[in-house]
Amino acid sequence: MILEQIIDLVAVCAKKGVQHVILSPGSRCAPLTLAFARYPEIHTRTISDERAAAFIALGMAQQLGKPVALVCTSGSAALNYYPAIAEAFFQEIPLLVLTADRPQEWIDQYDGQTIFQTEVYGKHVKGSYQFPNQVNGKDDLWLANRISNEAINLAKKYPAGPVHINIPLKEPFYPQAGEVISFPENPRIFNLSKSTLQLSEDSFLNLKNILASVQNLVIVPGQQKSDATLQSILDQLSIQQKAVVVADTISNLQSEQTITFHDHWLGNEKISENLKPDLIISFGKSIISKSLKLFLRNSDAPQWHIQENGEAKDTYQSLSQILPISPKNFLLWLSQNLRPQNPEYHHAWHSLDQTVSHSLPIVLDEVDFGEYGALNAVLKKVLPFSKIHVANSMAVRYLNFLGKRNPEIFCNRGTSGIDGSNSTAVGCTFTTKDPVTLITGDLAFFYDRNAFWHNYAIPNLRIVLLNNHAGGIFRMIDGPKNQPELEEFFETKQKLNAQHLATEFGFFYVKVQTRKELDQALTDFYAPGIHPKILEIETESPNNHEIIKTVKERISEVLK
Amino acid sequence: MILEQIIDLVAVCAKKGVQHVILSPGSRCAPLTLAFARYPEIHTRTISDERAAAFIALGMAQQLGKPVALVCTSGSAALNYYPAIAEAFFQEIPLLVLTADRPQEWIDQYDGQTIFQTEVYGKHVKGSYQFPNQVNGKDDLWLANRISNEAINLAKKYPAGPVHINIPLKEPFYPQAGEVISFPENPRIFNLSKSTLQLSEDSFLNLKNILASVQNLVIVPGQQKSDATLQSILDQLSIQQKAVVVADTISNLQSEQTITFHDHWLGNEKISENLKPDLIISFGKSIISKSLKLFLRNSDAPQWHIQENGEAKDTYQSLSQILPISPKNFLLWLSQNLRPQNPEYHHAWHSLDQTVSHSLPIVLDEVDFGEYGALNAVLKKVLPFSKIHVANSMAVRYLNFLGKRNPEIFCNRGTSGIDGSNSTAVGCTFTTKDPVTLITGDLAFFYDRNAFWHNYAIPNLRIVLLNNHAGGIFRMIDGPKNQPELEEFFETKQKLNAQHLATEFGFFYVKVQTRKELDQALTDFYAPGIHPKILEIETESPNNHEIIKTVKERISEVLK
Repeated sequence: MILEQIIDLVAVCAKKGVQHVILSPGSRCAPLTLAFARYPEIHTRTISDERAAAFIALGMAQQLGKPVALVCTSGSAALNYYPAIAEAFFQEIPLLVLTADRPQEWIDQYDGQTIFQTEVYGKHVKGSYQFPNQVNGKDDLWLANRISNEAINLAKKYPAGPVHINIPLKEPFYPQAGEVISFPENPRIFNLSKSTLQLSEDSFLNLKNILASVQNLVIVPGQQKSDATLQSILDQLSIQQKAVVVADTISNLQSEQTITFHDHWLGNEKISENLKPDLIISFGKSIISKSLKLFLRNSDAPQWHIQENGEAKDTYQSLSQILPISPKNFLLWLSQNLRPQNPEYHHAWHSLDQTVSHSLPIVLDEVDFGEYGALNAVLKKVLPFSKIHVANSMAVRYLNFLGKRNPEIFCNRGTSGIDGSNSTAVGCTFTTKDPVTLITGDLAFFYDRNAFWHNYAIPNLRIVLLNNHAGGIFRMIDGPKNQPELEEFFETKQKLNAQHLATEFGFFYVKVQTRKELDQALTDFYAPGIHPKILEIETESPNNHEIIKTVKERISEVLK
Repeated sequence: MILEQIIDLVAVCAKKGVQHVILSPGSRCAPLTLAFARYPEIHTRTISDERAAAFIALGMAQQLGKPVALVCTSGSAALNYYPAIAEAFFQEIPLLVLTADRPQEWIDQYDGQTIFQTEVYGKHVKGSYQFPNQVNGKDDLWLANRISNEAINLAKKYPAGPVHINIPLKEPFYPQAGEVISFPENPRIFNLSKSTLQLSEDSFLNLKNILASVQNLVIVPGQQKSDATLQSILDQLSIQQKAVVVADTISNLQSEQTITFHDHWLGNEKISENLKPDLIISFGKSIISKSLKLFLRNSDAPQWHIQENGEAKDTYQSLSQILPISPKNFLLWLSQNLRPQNPEYHHAWHSLDQTVSHSLPIVLDEVDFGEYGALNAVLKKVLPFSKIHVANSMAVRYLNFLGKRNPEIFCNRGTSGIDGSNSTAVGCTFTTKDPVTLITGDLAFFYDRNAFWHNYAIPNLRIVLLNNHAGGIFRMIDGPKNQPELEEFFETKQKLNAQHLATEFGFFYVKVQTRKELDQALTDFYAPGIHPKILEIETESPNNHEIIKTVKERISEVLK
């Protein structure tokens, strides 16, 4: 029994650039599984834990810039996808989520693996479709085909994101033994052309008038993928002293010309007082630095946000103009229409940045061994054309302190959850043969250990595990660190090391507790091998906290 | 900064019988965490993986028959709860789900750990409440207090289930170091009294008239907790030949007087042809046996379903009357108003049951060693006053084949997912010192391994792991077993054993591959110890399939 609407869906996927599918095992989804597995040009992998499966698909789509399809059976399988779907929604990563379902008549009738799947992802998908309950004739097939086209177009359309198709399937739905699936060579396709928005001449004129009186311009890129053209426009703006570019690590737009160590001084009111801009121009998604966020919120400067679909968040509580145009087009115009700004303002930012850039490595060499310095040593060894994945909480904050500029850095800052960072990195390894480095804390690492529970080789994965046996970030926050409940209910002390996990999954494993051990371990950490490698840096949470405090004090001294 | 509405919520919880809380670490939820941790009469535990945390809470509430509270931080944490919440909804287990949230003004503004939490659980909760965005004065406090009361009342009200309160929290929300929380001694409470529904005299009269012509009555209890009174009423109905009681293993109403081996013959048309009832009376939730379901659907008999809130599913496509009354009250009336039925009909069922009951152990002794016989041997050793948790897919089906009668059996048949069975069993161990046996397949076991990632002792847990390195159920279904994709995409072969996991978490571990090794391992498996124990029964998926086929053939021979 081969279902025509499913074969058509798979052929449509292939024609529209969906080349990778992550399946999870199930019976209800069998027609989807078989059709995808048998389609010659589609690459299918199977991952048993749906939570991990969805983050793996996300990690792939993030790299490919194209939708990856997810296929699961009916019931709670679909709910296990949800954390990754919300992350994809806020991080604007295209996913085509195909959930098999019982036919409508069997919903909520005590049949196994049956929940309410229609629109189950609420506001966290760009769109939600329901395949016909069964296909009887041309109109039903047309509906299914139309949904397939619309859903993929929507997932890809800017801003990209997850789209859900719920697919009721009636028994019988297994082909006969030996039955051959013949896919349509030319399934019916409709694509969405790309278009570019340009501001009207009036708008440009207005903006130009305002810019005439701007002296201290700050450009703040939010999270995005690295982009050489954007980078060079921003660098030129900075070299010509037309703007100060303040770039968090996840913006992937850090360079010699941009401010990257701002986290070290923006929390200092005396210093930041003199850095207040009179205009903020922003684009991209979220930023990491809380100091930068608060600085911008308190700056009283208006903010222009560039976003092609004209939807902007008011992150700095100062949004004054939304610019529906691509950042590239706007910044190019800006570079041509802006005269150099106040040179003292420019100098003030850059001299601070250079001072920290110079002093930080020295200070890190002087303090005790801990996560901070260890990470600095690790980052020096990362190969330039590789990728870095970094987990939430302290790991990504350390990277921002260290002003890490390249290679490209990925972090699940859509929902900023502790879940799914292993799986996202595993998804990345499925798309490249270059090394993929995952920098993670112990809680994020063990939370998502099922990322490794599958049969695919991932020899290019390198995991740097900062194991302080606790959620060290809670010691950094003034509130919990003074509570008697700190260790049990906030840090959540946990005693695991990665050694058993490494043996279980066949990973190479080394643990270091000193600077010397670390240097030794790093000598061949990036040497190619047939197994993924785990470098566990074991430290104590209170020490790391002391080190951060000491570094902060010493840098403050230097900046005085 | 101690938040009055949170302290009141916690005091209300305690007064209304919420005595256990499962917390997951986070900063946004700190006021909830601190207030629950400091309330003297509430027992708090912390579990890092929210997916496991929620199933653990479900496992506790299932035993306690009272709501257990869940507390998590904002963002994707809440989504990781979702699989367990859906399971609790369909299994009618009371949970009070407290999700901390950013205040409304910060939603969708690129702030960290922020999703759309309001009503995020859709149709899978009984109710969804939103705490005031902030509390300014009496009316806001009244609203928060009212929500707390209403939510707990709703969670407990028949049919019980999960209820969600989303709680926006503004900074600052940590108490000062040393600040003492003083809880109100008499928070304002309103409770919902219990009431009983009785059918009207007219209704009873009508039913009595119909019963007068019923010759072949079948009573089918669905999933529920064991209940001695119900059991004795049903046993009496059977002894007096007033009804045939066909009880699946998860009904927890199996006895010497009920039919328990029906799965062995109801698939046989020739036999089941003569067993068709002329009335089906059902109560409780779902059943396991697909043969029983199909038999009832094809029987053409009307079905009366007893359910106190008058909402019935039409599982057998034969619903003719919904009886809004408690099963106990109705069955008691039935036993007084029913004359003995057709004795031949009664005898037909019971002689089949006795034949299988007698033959099955003999047949199992004759066939090769495999999961089927191994489980039979294990069940003989389970202590009578303990609990059995069983995972979905094959594990629970084997139990039904074996007609297991006691001790009480729990299985997540609300959504019938493969997720969360370890955690549910762990939750059970938090409520009892008696042994808790978890019978699980390898996929369910490794899927939910984070159930064991916490700092609490669970020495009374005994895990029987049926490891065939695959989802063996797919070999049982005609569809997939004939596809070339069987092993990669359906069974999903996986190579793990539990040994590393056992070492990592400090569990006692023994693996058996033969009948002799099993017998030896069972001699002291239930001996008390300070560590949980894993008994891994390693078999091969194709062999198990052969054994099931052979047993089926031999039993068919006997029944001819």
